Formats: sequence, structure tokens, C-alpha cells
Amino acid sequence: MVIMTTTSSLAFLPVLERIAEEMQHTPGRGRAADYIPALAACDPRSFGMAVAELDGTVYGVGEWRQPFSAQSITKVFTLALDLAREGDELWEHVGREPSGNPFNSLVQLEYENGIPRNPFINAGALVVTDRLQTRTGDAAGQLLDFLRAESGNADLDFDLEVAASETAHGDRNAALAHFMASYGNIDNDVPTLLDQYFRQCSLTASCADLALATGFLARHGIRADGGRLLTRSQAKQVNAVMLTCGTYDAAGDFAYRVGLPGKSGVGGGIIAVVPGRCTLCVWSPGLDERGNSVTGVAALDRFTTLTGLSVF
Amino acid sequence: MVIMTTTSSLAFLPVLERIAEEMQHTPGRGRAADYIPALAACDPRSFGMAVAELDGTVYGVGEWRQPFSAQSITKVFTLALDLAREGDELWEHVGREPSGNPFNSLVQLEYENGIPRNPFINAGALVVTDRLQTRTGDAAGQLLDFLRAESGNADLDFDLEVAASETAHGDRNAALAHFMASYGNIDNDVPTLLDQYFRQCSLTASCADLALATGFLARHGIRADGGRLLTRSQAKQVNAVMLTCGTYDAAGDFAYRVGLPGKSGVGGGIIAVVPGRCTLCVWSPGLDERGNSVTGVAALDRFTTLTGLSVF
Amino acid sequence: MVIMTTTSSLAFLPVLERIAEEMQHTPGRGRAADYIPALAACDPRSFGMAVAELDGTVYGVGEWRQPFSAQSITKVFTLALDLAREGDELWEHVGREPSGNPFNSLVQLEYENGIPRNPFINAGALVVTDRLQTRTGDAAGQLLDFLRAESGNADLDFDLEVAASETAHGDRNAALAHFMASYGNIDNDVPTLLDQYFRQCSLTASCADLALATGFLARHGIRADGGRLLTRSQAKQVNAVMLTCGTYDAAGDFAYRVGLPGKSGVGGGIIAVVPGRCTLCVWSPGLDERGNSVTGVAALDRFTTLTGLSVF
Amino acid sequence: MVIMTTTSSLAFLPVLERIAEEMQHTPGRGRAADYIPALAACDPRSFGMAVAELDGTVYGVGEWRQPFSAQSITKVFTLALDLAREGDELWEHVGREPSGNPFNSLVQLEYENGIPRNPFINAGALVVTDRLQTRTGDAAGQLLDFLRAESGNADLDFDLEVAASETAHGDRNAALAHFMASYGNIDNDVPTLLDQYFRQCSLTASCADLALATGFLARHGIRADGGRLLTRSQAKQVNAVMLTCGTYDAAGDFAYRVGLPGKSGVGGGIIAVVPGRCTLCVWSPGLDERGNSVTGVAALDRFTTLTGLSVF
Repeated sequence: MVIMTTTSSLAFLPVLERIAEEMQHTPGRGRAADYIPALAACDPRSFGMAVAELDGTVYGVGEWRQPFSAQSITKVFTLALDLAREGDELWEHVGREPSGNPFNSLVQLEYENGIPRNPFINAGALVVTDRLQTRTGDAAGQLLDFLRAESGNADLDFDLEVAASETAHGDRNAALAHFMASYGNIDNDVPTLLDQYFRQCSLTASCADLALATGFLARHGIRADGGRLLTRSQAKQVNAVMLTCGTYDAAGDFAYRVGLPGKSGVGGGIIAVVPGRCTLCVWSPGLDERGNSVTGVAALDRFTTLTGLSVF
Repeated sequence: MVIMTTTSSLAFLPVLERIAEEMQHTPGRGRAADYIPALAACDPRSFGMAVAELDGTVYGVGEWRQPFSAQSITKVFTLALDLAREGDELWEHVGREPSGNPFNSLVQLEYENGIPRNPFINAGALVVTDRLQTRTGDAAGQLLDFLRAESGNADLDFDLEVAASETAHGDRNAALAHFMASYGNIDNDVPTLLDQYFRQCSLTASCADLALATGFLARHGIRADGGRLLTRSQAKQVNAVMLTCGTYDAAGDFAYRVGLPGKSGVGGGIIAVVPGRCTLCVWSPGLDERGNSVTGVAALDRFTTLTGLSVF
Repeated sequence: MVIMTTTSSLAFLPVLERIAEEMQHTPGRGRAADYIPALAACDPRSFGMAVAELDGTVYGVGEWRQPFSAQSITKVFTLALDLAREGDELWEHVGREPSGNPFNSLVQLEYENGIPRNPFINAGALVVTDRLQTRTGDAAGQLLDFLRAESGNADLDFDLEVAASETAHGDRNAALAHFMASYGNIDNDVPTLLDQYFRQCSLTASCADLALATGFLARHGIRADGGRLLTRSQAKQVNAVMLTCGTYDAAGDFAYRVGLPGKSGVGGGIIAVVPGRCTLCVWSPGLDERGNSVTGVAALDRFTTLTGLSVF
Repeated sequence: MVIMTTTSSLAFLPVLERIAEEMQHTPGRGRAADYIPALAACDPRSFGMAVAELDGTVYGVGEWRQPFSAQSITKVFTLALDLAREGDELWEHVGREPSGNPFNSLVQLEYENGIPRNPFINAGALVVTDRLQTRTGDAAGQLLDFLRAESGNADLDFDLEVAASETAHGDRNAALAHFMASYGNIDNDVPTLLDQYFRQCSLTASCADLALATGFLARHGIRADGGRLLTRSQAKQVNAVMLTCGTYDAAGDFAYRVGLPGKSGVGGGIIAVVPGRCTLCVWSPGLDERGNSVTGVAALDRFTTLTGLSVF
């Protein structure tokens, strides 16, 4: 059950309002991603932030109900959906170590025989999508069904224009997929895989939707309807991978500043988990040089500082 | 105040006893580090584990009062001692991102102009020691004073024979130090720095000593005597760096399995922090191929599984 | 005009006969390439060697008229054909420096923004084929026409079964092509390019054919019919690139031992140029760990030692 | 016997004069090396060029008798002196392949277990000096004796001020030496080795001196006094290593443009060999971004174009 509300009686609303106020006065909000027209058109000053309680109550500030391009945030859900199906066998095909410097992602793939370092770098997400596709025949469809159910928003959908833009700029992901295929670490044919992958990235959702959809990670694996997606141990493990690998080459910095499991996307969104307590989603399209939302990270930093809710 | 006790009334003692029992039956305990005679002589089947409560109560199982070579575990304390003195300026000289694949540590140093990725890889620890040396004139002495005070054990000391062995095998660390010096990121002359560094690594202490000495990280920065070493924010930050970078190239795996900030050493010890609750130290000299104690990681894995005390 | 002869009056025939005799007694001839069935089926003990004089006289020993798979040897001809058309502009899209260690070919491509180090590594050959394809609409056809004309052998042709095998194992080349395309350094669509490239590699020719076809590099750019393909300066330049980059990661060793511009292929063939004097082609399918014919290199080493014809 | 002359009856003098004239009108001559005061003080417009005939006749144009800092040019002589003593065993400690991209010199050393790629990168030259030092007890002294004898100039000497500057900036070479020592590929203690190495680099000599001293490589191993330093095969091999590795990461470009075995130094000098015919030395302190003399390379390019004396 999803309870939509903005009443000020809700626990973190005063904190969110204070953060929204502060963020209005923060100079320099980075630049929106420019390789996809739909992303480049976003106003970098946009800002929304939502909290979802464990019981499905969700509330927020700013543009917290405005849909945006989820992009790499979807990798968390695809990971969970595949892990729920195949369990630890997945970890023979993708690692769970931080990737270090981005410039050597390819040499690491080569050095490690086509096994990507973790499921959140592009190479690793391609492997996860490939495996979910093999198991379900429609990885993107599975993702969409899951997100609609968890968010209670049946209108969630892919943005096929964004997916087409990604495909038109898809040579680097095609290179990664073919490279891993040369090591036998991709099952599906590369064009099929890329189609699934780019559709998945194009998902459009709001802070409210994504905070709700992330709830199972705060509920130790339990879905919105009370069913179990992941074991308690698996939920902990996904949180651990988010903390160590969720924000590209800034995972250490994110852990240092925010201290929560989180996952960012180039659309400017970031989801974060306070295990056993709540989930958050923040959105602001201006990115820093490592691809994370400048204002998003700052807002989460303030949240854990003001509430003391860091895991550390 | 330090309270030494083994009475079974203490909270985690039954868990520790169960773990000790289980660990006796675990096959394959890895190999002790062999590049230093004093380490190679250790029996890989040795095992000890201690918990220190926030109030200084400490208790344990197995060889929890047997001194061993702390090695890289000391990097946590040196980091805290320097951070307490110079604050965020330190982060201009060393990063806080995981280092990725160990094979490219040197090329990363080159690519990033002599700034090591984090304070727990050797290059980063050399920078931290160099800076503490510049500020105090005796980095190793400061470390020893701190550890004696926190553990309440005035007999703690360096093992100069171990330090001499390290020096005799010190070409790689000398290479790192000179390389960073070529970028202007080392202040002291290299032989002085290496002497300080190798002495620090040679510290000999027991699980009890090290669990107690780590207490300030569970107490949000407060020392055993009630004084403050780090701000609350700094304590959280050190924990975050431990979680993302504390176990060499297995930090992701450690976070996934154990889910606590931790730091290992090639002597076979590992310290871990449950923020706001307690600290742990486990020791067993058999190492896996990434340099972490096989039984040590397994024991901590069991601890968080049995107690549910993971940060995730 | 091509003169086919085996009469012993020809200048280097005694030397060739002595080499053939010696090679029969050489132990350990390496292993034939095994990723393509047609190559794996070759007997590693096969051996042929031909010399082509400047006037088109050709003679040889052993299986010098036995067709084999030319593979990367064709890269020399494609380079010459494209260089003849576009001149120095080519060098803005591919370098002419040795590539160093093979393990980092991809990171070098990344570091150098999609510009391959030289035209003889796979990435560089893909760029050359891409450019020749853009200029002619049929790169492989141009190559075939040229080789038939220079060798006087109208029966030369591609082996489409070999090309199909290459395509089936083509993921790594597809990765390279897409990766360079992501930097804008590939004009044609990737499947078209790979089809052209793999057909070209599948060319089947004998030592006699290839020694004759290489003649223009010994004649300072003049083709068999007296027409000019390359300027004198360009012919010198192609020879220089062959010497520094023609034998994968063994170019230094080849220069050291043989001292001639040369180009090898995984089919076991090697062509070599004595500028102003003659050309050679040797074939023996057993390869060393760097992909060069063991007996082929040894035979050329003996040739330059016995004749003093090294360029040094 | 050394014959010093400038009479215009000598074979290449008209060519040299034409080149000197052309070089006066070449814009943009690069920048002198600036990390050593003595080098930074050089006028980048200085220019000298000398040819030494096989019989010891030497003549030149411009500042061909002006001493300059030989720097890495000396690596050729140290290589020859060590190779003459230990023969092929040297190649078990240093390779003879081009090093590829300079940025990964350290990772290559790591990947190849402390064996440098070739004797002309700094790591390789340190190994050669180390081995000559072990065999002679005074590598730099051996070098000086050899150069004085070959040039007929008893006044040749090291510039200890330059050597001291190198030592003061020597951290990177110290890092390389310690790193190789960690693999057991350095015999002498590092400070002793660096002292020998930096003295050797500081040798001051003129174009005339260095062209004469290089003569043994054009005479297939025969010294100025008719004695043999290297076997014919070894002389060919040194020339091959110069051609493939002699000009840092521009060896391919140098082979392409000049087409002669050559070795450059950051002092702005370049030596080159026309096997069996003559040797050259050119000097002009302005360097390109890869550390080679801009005008020096241009002058040698013109020389081989005007005379047709390229090895290709």
C-alpha cells in the first residue's frame, strides 16, 4: 500500500524543507548530461527530494513528483531481480569490488578475463541484464513490472526517444559487450542485449516513484506487498555493493560524505537507503565531473548530518 | 578505564564462543605471510577474537591476549592521529577512493600525479606517515603513545626485528616513496620516512589491545579517557574509508560479507567497528591470496550474521 | 613480367637450399594457430621460402608454391593501397609507433582517444580498411586486384570458409571497431567493416605470390608493370613501419635478429624486404607465443646472416 | 687516427651546408629542457652537425665543435661496453622491444616482473649501468675512457654540476631502481648506481666527438684503433635496438622520417649511423614534446632525403 502525502506531520519533512531551502542558495550546480538531447534539455537548477517510510508513506519537497530519466539507478533493480532468480551464481560472472580509476575499465576487463568488477559499472550492468534476459526473455519488461508494482504507479514507462538516443551513441557499450562476449561472458546476441539495456536505462520516474521502489532494500528484502524478493542476507549484500560501488569513481567520497548505500544516474537522480528506517530519492540534473548530481549529493550529505542517520 | 574480564555474563561472549567452536572445524585456513621470518613462523591455525564494549569492557575467546604483528592495522590509527591534527587538508595529498585492481597501483599513482587513491594502500599510508612526521617529528612515537593510552597496556611496543626485516625487503616501498617525492607529495627524506613507516608496521599487540584502541571509532571520536580525538563527522569519515578501502582489493567482498568498517593486516589481524555499539579484533595468521586472514573474515562474517549487527 | 624458375643459376638459391636443409633439423617448431579450423589443420613442419628479384624472377625451396592463409600479411598491401590514395592524411587517424605490451592495447586506444598506435595492430588495420573502403567502396576487391596483378596469379582469391570462421570469432575485433567508432575514428558501419576486414585476412596465396606482390617495396614504390604505386619516400616509410611494427610485440626482436622490414601473419607466413635488392616470403605454420612463425623467423635470421643483407 | 678538417672537398659537406642554411629558416625550434639549469640556459637556436667517415675523418657545420650535454646518447656506449663484456646474458635482464606509451612504463615494469622493455628507456639504462658497474667497478670511468679514445679528445669529461642537478631531481630514477631491485634485477645498492648513472649522463661532448665515438657502429664493431669492440652481429643488433627504441616514444616516427638507427638526448643531441658508410651527430637544444631535438630530427630527415642514405 502506498500512502501519498505532504502533510508536515511526517517525520523527516522539516529536515527536507530545510534542505530544500539551503539548496536554493547553493552556487554552482554542475552541468546536465549533454550526450542525450532529452537530458541536456533539463534545467540544472531543478530540485526534488522524497522520503519513503517503511510502510509506504512517501512525501517530499520541490519537484519530487516530476518524472526524470532514471538511467543507471535502474541497475539496482535489475541486479536485485537477477539475484533473486539465480542467487550467488551471478557472482561468477560479475565481481563486487570497486572499479578504481575509470580510465582503466577496459584494461581491467582484459586483465580479469572479461569479468567486470561490479554490477554498477556499465560492463557489469550489461552482464546482469544479459543474465536476466536469458532467464526471463524480457529483462526490461520484468524491470518495468517490478517498478510499477513497488511504486504503485501503473503509468511508469520507458522513454523510447531517450533509448533511441542512447542507441545512437551506443558504440562504447557495444564495444564492452563484444569484448566480454569474446571471453564467453555474454549469452545473448549483442544487438538484443543492447536494446534491452538501453530501454531499461530510459525508464522515466519521479523521486516518489523511485524512493518507493527502493523500499525493499530498507525492509531487508520485503516488497511493498509483503512478499519477499531477496533474503535478508541478499538485501544486506545489495546495500553493501551500493555503498562501495554505487556512485562511479566517487563511491569512497560518497561513503565519506553521505555514509549511506546509494546509486546515482546521469539523469541527475540518486537513491539512498537507511536500512531498517527509510529510503530517499533526490533529483537535480546538474552533474559533477564524475557524473553524480552536485546538488543531490549535497542534499544527502545534509540529510545524514542533520538526522545522524548515516550507517557509520 | 579498561575492564578486563572473561565472565560469561558479557553480551557477545556466547556468540564469540560459538564462532570459536565453528572456526575449529573450518578447513583451509590459508598461509601465513612468508616474506618476514617472524610472520612466517606463526601457526596458521592460531585464532583469537575480542570484543570491546563502549565502556572499555573487553573480553574474548581463543588467543585473544596473544600479541601479534599489527602491520597495516596501524594505518587506521596513524590516519586518525594525522586527521585530528591537520583536518581536511590531508585530503589534498591522499584520496579516499578504493584503489581497484592492485596490479595498477603504480599506473594510478602516475595517472593521478602522485596522489595515492586512499590512506590504506601502502602509497597512501606513506603519505599519512610523512605528514604526521612533519607535524610531530616522531610519527611512530605518537602512534605508540596513543595505542598504549587507549589499550591501557603500557608494555605495547614495536618489534625492531620485524622492522629490520621489513627494511631489508623495503625496495617496493622505497620506490613508491621516491615516486611520490618526484611529484612533490613527500616532505621528509625517504630513508627517514621508511624508518618511521616500518617501525609503525612492526607494532605488536593482542586482540584485546587493538579492540580497545579502536574504541574511539565506535564512540564517534571519543577516546578512552573521555577526551575527543576526532569530531563526530571525522569518526564517521574514518569508518567510511575503512569500509570502502580497509581490506586491500577485497573491500567490496568484505562489505558484502561482513558489512562493517574493518581494517586488516598481513600479520593476520582484522579490526572492525560497530558504530555506537562495540569494536572487534580477530586474529588468525593464515591469509587468502588478497592478504586478508581467511579465518578472520569468516569469523566476522559469522558475527554479523549471528548478531544482525551489520551496518546494512 | 613474372619469371617463374627454379634453376640453380639464380643468385640466392644456394643460400635458400642451405637454409631449407638446416630448418629440417631444427627442433621445436611451435604450434599452428588453433582458433580457425583451416589454420589448425596445417602441419607445423611445413616449410617453404621464396625470393623475388627486382625484375620479377622468383624461385624458392620447399613448399614455396603451396597456398596458405596470408592473414595479417595483407595489412601491408592495404596500407600501401590507402596511402597511395590519401597520403599523409591517413596518419591523423592511425599512428606509426610500436604498440608496446599487447596487454594494454585497449588502454592505449583509450588513452590516445581512439587513434591506434600503428597500422599493423588489429585496431590500426581496421582503421586502414575502413578508410580504403570509404575511398573505393570495396577495400577487399581492391586488395585482390592488386595482389593478382603483382603476383601474375589470376587465381588468387579469398577463402570464404576462413572468413566465416573469423567472423564467428570476431567479437574482439567488433569491440575494437565499436570502441574506435565511439571516438569518431570509424566511418563505415561496423558489420560492413568487419566483413571487408575478415575477407581480406582470408586471402590465400603462396610464398611465390607474396614475395612477388611485395616487390614494389624493394623497387622504391614501382609496381611490377613499371607503374608507380607509392612515391620513393612513401615506400621508405612503409618499410620503416614494417621494421618497427611488423611482427606484433616482437618487432624489436625481429629487427635485432633479422634486421629487415618484415610482416608476419598467424597463418605462418612472413614477408621481408631488402630495399633495392629483393623480397622474400617464408612460410611455416608453427607459431611462437607472440604469433610469429618460429621456423620463418629462424630462416630469415639465417638468410641475413649468410648473405649480410640486413639493413644494419 | 682522427682527421679534423672542414675543407669542402669532403663528400657530405655540401649537403651539410645546405641543411644548415635551410635550418636557419625553420620556424619553431622547440624548448630546451628546463629541469636542469645548465640545459635550460642553452639557446634553442644553436645548431651544429658533424659527419664522421669510416676512416675517422670528421667535418661539420655550425657549432659542430661546441660541447653540449650528451645525456641519453651515452646509453648507446654503455650498452655496447656491457654487451662486449657479457654478451647475450644481458638480454635476460633487459628486453629489446619498444616501450610503447610512456605513461605506462611503470605498469609494464610491474607486468614484466622488473625487466625493462629495452636498454634506452631509463629503467633499462639503469640495468645496463648496474651490470657494467658490477663487471668493472666503475661504469662511468669505463665510459669516459672509451669516449676519449674513440673521439681522440682527451679533454672529454663529466660535468659534475649537471650530475648534481640530476641527483637533486632524481626521485623518479630512484623509484625505478628500487622497484627493479624489488624484483632482484639490480645488483648494486641504489645510491651507488644512481651516482654512476647521473655522472654518465652528464658527459659533455661536441658533435665531432660523438660522431667519431659512434664510428664503431658503422664499422660493424671495429674501434677507431682497429681493435674490435663488438662482433659484426652485435654491432648490427645495437643498430637495430637504436632504430626501434632510440628516440623515446617517437622511434616509429624517427624510422619513418629519417630511416637510420639513431639515439637522442635531452641535451638536444642526436647520433645516427649509416652502416658501412658514416656516422652523424646533430645538436640543437630545442626539444619537441617527446624530448627529441626539433631541428636535429629535421636536419637528419633532410640528410637522408638529400643523400638517399636511409637504410630503407
